[in-house]
Amino acid sequence: MARLNIKNINPHVVEAQYAVRGELAVKSEVYRAKIRKGEGKDLPFKEVISANIGNPQQLDQKPITFFRQVLSLLENPKLLEHEDVLINSLGYKTDVIERAKTLLSQVGSVGAYSASAGAPGIKESIAKFLERRDGFPADPSRIYLSGGASSGVNTLLHIICAGQNSGILIPIPQYPLYTAALAVLQAKCVPYYLDESQNWGTSLATIKESYEKAKSEGTDVRAIVVINPGNPTGASLSEADIGSIIDFATQEKLVVIADEVYQTNVFLGTFHSFREVLLKKQKDAPGKYDSLELASLHSISKGMVGECGHRGGYFELIGFDPEVEEQVYKFVSVMLCAPVIGQCLVELMVNPPREGDPSFELYDKEYNGIFNSLKERAFALYNAFKDMEGVKCGEPQGSMYLFPTITLPAKAIEAAKKEGRSPDEFYCLRLLDATGVCLVAGSGFGQKEGTLHFRTTFLAPGTEWVGSIKKFHKEFMDEFR
Amino acid sequence: MARLNIKNINPHVVEAQYAVRGELAVKSEVYRAKIRKGEGKDLPFKEVISANIGNPQQLDQKPITFFRQVLSLLENPKLLEHEDVLINSLGYKTDVIERAKTLLSQVGSVGAYSASAGAPGIKESIAKFLERRDGFPADPSRIYLSGGASSGVNTLLHIICAGQNSGILIPIPQYPLYTAALAVLQAKCVPYYLDESQNWGTSLATIKESYEKAKSEGTDVRAIVVINPGNPTGASLSEADIGSIIDFATQEKLVVIADEVYQTNVFLGTFHSFREVLLKKQKDAPGKYDSLELASLHSISKGMVGECGHRGGYFELIGFDPEVEEQVYKFVSVMLCAPVIGQCLVELMVNPPREGDPSFELYDKEYNGIFNSLKERAFALYNAFKDMEGVKCGEPQGSMYLFPTITLPAKAIEAAKKEGRSPDEFYCLRLLDATGVCLVAGSGFGQKEGTLHFRTTFLAPGTEWVGSIKKFHKEFMDEFR
Repeated sequence: MARLNIKNINPHVVEAQYAVRGELAVKSEVYRAKIRKGEGKDLPFKEVISANIGNPQQLDQKPITFFRQVLSLLENPKLLEHEDVLINSLGYKTDVIERAKTLLSQVGSVGAYSASAGAPGIKESIAKFLERRDGFPADPSRIYLSGGASSGVNTLLHIICAGQNSGILIPIPQYPLYTAALAVLQAKCVPYYLDESQNWGTSLATIKESYEKAKSEGTDVRAIVVINPGNPTGASLSEADIGSIIDFATQEKLVVIADEVYQTNVFLGTFHSFREVLLKKQKDAPGKYDSLELASLHSISKGMVGECGHRGGYFELIGFDPEVEEQVYKFVSVMLCAPVIGQCLVELMVNPPREGDPSFELYDKEYNGIFNSLKERAFALYNAFKDMEGVKCGEPQGSMYLFPTITLPAKAIEAAKKEGRSPDEFYCLRLLDATGVCLVAGSGFGQKEGTLHFRTTFLAPGTEWVGSIKKFHKEFMDEFR
Repeated sequence: MARLNIKNINPHVVEAQYAVRGELAVKSEVYRAKIRKGEGKDLPFKEVISANIGNPQQLDQKPITFFRQVLSLLENPKLLEHEDVLINSLGYKTDVIERAKTLLSQVGSVGAYSASAGAPGIKESIAKFLERRDGFPADPSRIYLSGGASSGVNTLLHIICAGQNSGILIPIPQYPLYTAALAVLQAKCVPYYLDESQNWGTSLATIKESYEKAKSEGTDVRAIVVINPGNPTGASLSEADIGSIIDFATQEKLVVIADEVYQTNVFLGTFHSFREVLLKKQKDAPGKYDSLELASLHSISKGMVGECGHRGGYFELIGFDPEVEEQVYKFVSVMLCAPVIGQCLVELMVNPPREGDPSFELYDKEYNGIFNSLKERAFALYNAFKDMEGVKCGEPQGSMYLFPTITLPAKAIEAAKKEGRSPDEFYCLRLLDATGVCLVAGSGFGQKEGTLHFRTTFLAPGTEWVGSIKKFHKEFMDEFR
């Protein structure tokens, strides 16, 4: 045996790509460290703007007070011995104290492992939320707490993919967790393209075409992933579109994996969950949809919660074989349990203060403030892109991202080729070097051949960074025109 | 495609076994739920004792005050606007407040993603701890924060195992995370037996024999896992034993994976880290050990910290090829980062209050109280086992477990066979049904053929449960004699 080297370690890990934290992100961290140490004087910018990753609290988003007050009591339950101080000197409301007591009675200590799939009381609270959201009851025993949605996706793909012949339908562009996990699992990504001309909606015809092609090549297509609202596109699917995907998946016996982590980040139209549409269909046509297997995921990382550092989330299974669920349970149990404080935050997200509760007014104000500020920034960025030569961007619909098309001059494409990079990577790297703004090139998510994009979050505050993108873009276009 | 079923899902997940949370644990949770709902009146016990899993705070262990005070401030930084209240009304010391400020300046918000391998400031603090512990400086850039040690082990095995031909030397008995992860990765477990007659120590001759046998069968043996102090055995290795494993691994170019999560749970002898022994050897024989690749893991889940619900840990790499480290970085980045509040708890663990600090006295008292109480319980349990017919148990050495041998009557072995169970599983199931005490059968960790064991934690308070084991055991032996 030789020592470990790039040629003899797991080739499937080596294959996997994850641009969101790739070369550009690493370089941006080097710049950030330089600036912190006071060694950034030769750089043409004063700070690094991480617009590459949906990390709200790294930028401007403040945590919601009610959530964090409860968490502070969960971390130090001894504070509950001083209710008067909490209320009179620290401004904690009584519902904060009550909620902390309820959660502590359910988990014991947040320092203890919970049951493998999550604390039972928290799963019950999620079930009630699903019922309120969709109008149909949920079974807590089919809910699995996870360390963010990413770990849930990883679990589901591990169960579903049975080898090199297994294929999963993945939207392109996609969040690259999916292709990275499939690479590690040696399973096939069966890409279906989203329709940029239709605001990045799904086209059933395109899905069918990809599916039939993969089937004809011998791939055992097992599931379809839908990211709704979309990442990186922001697109929010209509009830009809969701219905047609459910019809198709039922007919072809495909598992539906509905990644719904951006369900509250919707600016245009209304969010419909796959669960809601499926259960309506099951009610309207008894028996017809009973065989469909739906896994839907949610997370505390996005939305107005934005608590990604706490790594909390859950997935719910509908229609799965009990023996398969036993394997899901075993798989999650090997990693013991999701972080318990993150589980508690999931409970707070799905069961926030309601009208009349002492904490409601502040909660509501903070929640709406975050929503409106995200929407405002999305449109400010969108308007800036409208003025930029060769940049085309759809109106902001949701999620935390814009994903504009860029058309670059032939000389720039040539220069990129010389460096062995895709043109959009080349562009993003030059942008980072010039402005300190870190984006992700469209090639990191997948895009139709011959098209170029980048993804940017609209989380960063202020307009200075948008101005610096505009200035860079003009200079770049002038240089390579 | 058919719907998902046990025959068509990932066969390697189906193969994986994880007894710590297996059938027995599931049944114990059913009993617990029954009792909670007031439906346990027909059961022969009043409560379930989870001695199957090292979950200190589920049982009697209280979190350390300093840690939790800091965490409460990290979760609700607005409390820092009321220092006078914290100090005068809530008993927070000034070092609690200072530490919270330092950590917040390093992570920003605990709700934000950190850098993929962990917050830089926390990695620096771990490096300083390693230097204090071992006498040799550490490089923070080679430290990776993880969600408990389990997720670190999962990362390492994913990188090292390159397919069905890759083999990893695993101690037997072992913590079954290792064999479960290898099953999912389709890599080979190359078992080496620990020597029960030598207090479960490692025998280099046995390791070599296993290694040579695997090699002769064509297995590409890539690494050796050592759990020190041992799980489930509690054994703590001598410096000489560690040295001989390092010599062997250097000679055969094997990666050493040192699972050192029980490093502070040592009652007998002194803990020596693999890192310390390796770096001493590198100093004493320059050049000779430079090629050795060592990955060592630690966690906040065990020891006097016992914060397993927070899912925190780290691993440090020594001697790895930079291109391989890049792949480690990429692999962890796909899951974004370890829980940030857990990362902060790692920092608190490795950098606790010192003599002279305002919080030291209480910290020291709590720390020693937990240590002494664990030791006391270990010996109480050990003494109870001494009185039990057919039970043999070595003196408690460390970790949180005892792993006695049991000799069961032939009739019991027959009865187990009829149920399709191993005799120790049969015994543990009967024990659970009779007493509510949940153990793990030795077969869940692996054991020499023809021997039987069980693992029990010594975390549960009181002696009543120990008495009920004794009573059950007598009745069981009488029934099957």
